Amino acid sequence: MGPHPAVAAIRLAVRRVLHDVLTDHAPSLDPDRVPDTPSRAPLVLVACSGGADSMALASALAFEAPKLGIRAGGVTVDHGLQSGSDLRADEVVLRLTELGLAPAESVAVTVGRDGGPEAAARDARYAALDDAADRHEAAAVLLGHTRDDQAETVLLGLARGSGTRSLSGMAAVSGGPGADRRYRRPFLHLDRQTARKACMVQSLPVWDDPHNADPAYTRSRLRHEGLPALEKALGKGVVEALARTAQLSRDDADALDAWAGRAEASVRDAAGLLECAKLYALPPAVRRRILRRAAIEAGAPAGSLFARHIEEIDRLITGWRGQGAINLPGKVVAQRQGGRLVIRQG
Amino acid sequence: MGPHPAVAAIRLAVRRVLHDVLTDHAPSLDPDRVPDTPSRAPLVLVACSGGADSMALASALAFEAPKLGIRAGGVTVDHGLQSGSDLRADEVVLRLTELGLAPAESVAVTVGRDGGPEAAARDARYAALDDAADRHEAAAVLLGHTRDDQAETVLLGLARGSGTRSLSGMAAVSGGPGADRRYRRPFLHLDRQTARKACMVQSLPVWDDPHNADPAYTRSRLRHEGLPALEKALGKGVVEALARTAQLSRDDADALDAWAGRAEASVRDAAGLLECAKLYALPPAVRRRILRRAAIEAGAPAGSLFARHIEEIDRLITGWRGQGAINLPGKVVAQRQGGRLVIRQG
Repeated sequence: MGPHPAVAAIRLAVRRVLHDVLTDHAPSLDPDRVPDTPSRAPLVLVACSGGADSMALASALAFEAPKLGIRAGGVTVDHGLQSGSDLRADEVVLRLTELGLAPAESVAVTVGRDGGPEAAARDARYAALDDAADRHEAAAVLLGHTRDDQAETVLLGLARGSGTRSLSGMAAVSGGPGADRRYRRPFLHLDRQTARKACMVQSLPVWDDPHNADPAYTRSRLRHEGLPALEKALGKGVVEALARTAQLSRDDADALDAWAGRAEASVRDAAGLLECAKLYALPPAVRRRILRRAAIEAGAPAGSLFARHIEEIDRLITGWRGQGAINLPGKVVAQRQGGRLVIRQG
Repeated sequence: MGPHPAVAAIRLAVRRVLHDVLTDHAPSLDPDRVPDTPSRAPLVLVACSGGADSMALASALAFEAPKLGIRAGGVTVDHGLQSGSDLRADEVVLRLTELGLAPAESVAVTVGRDGGPEAAARDARYAALDDAADRHEAAAVLLGHTRDDQAETVLLGLARGSGTRSLSGMAAVSGGPGADRRYRRPFLHLDRQTARKACMVQSLPVWDDPHNADPAYTRSRLRHEGLPALEKALGKGVVEALARTAQLSRDDADALDAWAGRAEASVRDAAGLLECAKLYALPPAVRRRILRRAAIEAGAPAGSLFARHIEEIDRLITGWRGQGAINLPGKVVAQRQGGRLVIRQG
C-alpha cells in the first residue's frame, strides 16, 4: 500500500524540485572530484516555521533527499516578536532533527520597522535564510508557500492597483543576494489543505501561528474573510484562478520588461536623453515601463513610485501643453525640455 | 451658484467624451456642406435602462450636447424578461423625452440562451443598440458603466484565471459591427454613488433593477457580498485599484498582442507552418499568444479555449517527449510533426 494521497502529493512536489536543483547544481560541481564523495553531496535546506505547510515540506524533503543523494537540512527563524518564541524555535529544531534533518538550526533575528511589521519581519527572515544558506553552502532553500498563499499574494497585489507585475505573486524559483536561483517553492501548486492533511496522517505536530488569525493583519483578514466571500460569490475555483493569474501575469510582465529594456536604448539621443517623439511612438505599456525605469535610475525609490506618478510623467509625452516640472519621490524631478525628457534628482 | 458637485462631475465626464466624439467625427463631415446646417449636427445616443447610472448619463447628455451642436437621443432596450417590461420601457422613453432627447425610443428584443442568461441578454442588447445606431446614423452610443461596474468586471475576469486580457475590463471606447469607435463609457472613472447622487439632486426618478440584487446572478453576489468583503479586508481603495488594474492590463495585453502579431510571421516556414525551434526562442507570453491565435484560426471557438489548452499545446514546444495529438475545442487538433506544429480541424 502506498502512502496517503496527501503525502504522495507533497513528496512528488518536492521530488520534482530536487531534480531541478540537481540539474541546476550539476555544472558547478568540480569535475576533478570523485562525484560520489559524500561530503560533496549538495545540501538543500527547508525554511520551517513549525506551521503545517513548512512541516509537511520538511517531512517530504527528509523522505526524498536521501534517495537523490542530497543532504537535507532545516532552518527556523526566531523573530523574537512573541514571548517564548525562542522555546518555540527550539521545539521546531527538535522536530526537524527527529525527521533526520542535519543541520537543523534556529536563527534569532531582530525585526526592524521599515515598511510595516509584515515587511520588516519578512526582510529579517530572508536575511537570516540567506546567511544560513551561505554558511552551509546550501544548493537551495525550500519555502512552504502554497497555492492559497499565492492567491492571497495576488489579491494583495491587486489592491495596490499597480498592474501586471504586482499580480504575478511569488515565483516558483527566485534569487537571493548570494545566489540567483536559491529559493524554491515546491508547494506553489498545492493547496494548504493537502499540506495540513499530510501532517495529520504522518502524526506531525504543527503550530498554528496566532498571527495568521489576527485580523490586525491584512493577509489574515484576506484569508479568513475576503477570500471566502469571493469564493462564495465567484465559485470554488477562485484560488486556482488567482494562482494561474500569477503565472500568466509573471510571464507577461517578464516579456514586457524585456521589450522595455531593448526599446530604451533606441529612444535615447546621443547624449543619453530620452526623446519624446520616439517615446510617443511606443505602445503605452512599453513607454510607461521605460519611464518607470528612468525614474528609478534617477533615484526614485521603486516602492514609493506609483502608477499615478508614471501617468503624470507620461502626460509630458502624450498630453504636452507646456506643463512644469513634476516632483517624484526621492527628490527626483521630471521635466520636458526641447523635446527631451529630463529625469534627475533635483 | 454652480450645479451640485455630483451633477458637475457627470456633466464634465460627458463633455469630455462629446469632445472626443466631435474630434473623431470631424473628418467624415462632407467638406462641401455648410458646417452649421442643423440637419448635419451629429447625433449621440444614450443607452438607458432607467437605472441611476444611465439616467444620470441621459441627463448630462441632454445638458451638454446642445452646447456643442450635437443632437442628443436615447434608446432603451426592452429585454422582455419580466412582466410589464414593456410598460417600464415606455416610462423610460417618457423620461428621456422629458429630458429633451430626440429620438427617444424603446426597442424590444428576444433574448436567446447562448452562453447563459447574462451573456444572452447582453448580446441581444448590443445587437439592438447597433441597429438603432445604424438606423439613426448616430456618431456614438453612450453607456452608463461606472468604475464600480469596471471593478466587478475585473473580478469576474480574475475568476476565469485566463490572464491579462481577461483583467482588462471594459474599454472606454469600443467598437460595434457598424463602427470602430461606436460605444463610449463616460462614467468609467466615476463611482456609482456619484451617478445616484446626481439623479437625486436633479429629482430624476430611477428604477432599481431587481436583477441587480438577485443573488442568483454572479455579478450581483459580487456587488453585494464579494466586493464589500474584499474592501473590508484590503481597504476602501479596492474599487479604484481594480479600475486602474483594468487600464494597465488593457495596455499590457494590447502591447503583447501586437508583439505576437508581428512575431507570428517570423516563426512560420515557407509552407506557413509554425516552426517549433523558433517558437521555443520566444518569451512564453508571446509564444502562448501565437499558439492561441493559431488555434482560433484553425477553428477553435475563442470562448472555449482555456489557459490549460494553450499550456498543453505549449508543452509540445517546451516539454517535447513524443506526446500525441492534442484535442482542442471545435474539433481542432494540435500535433508536432518533424519540428513543425500543425494545428487544424480534424
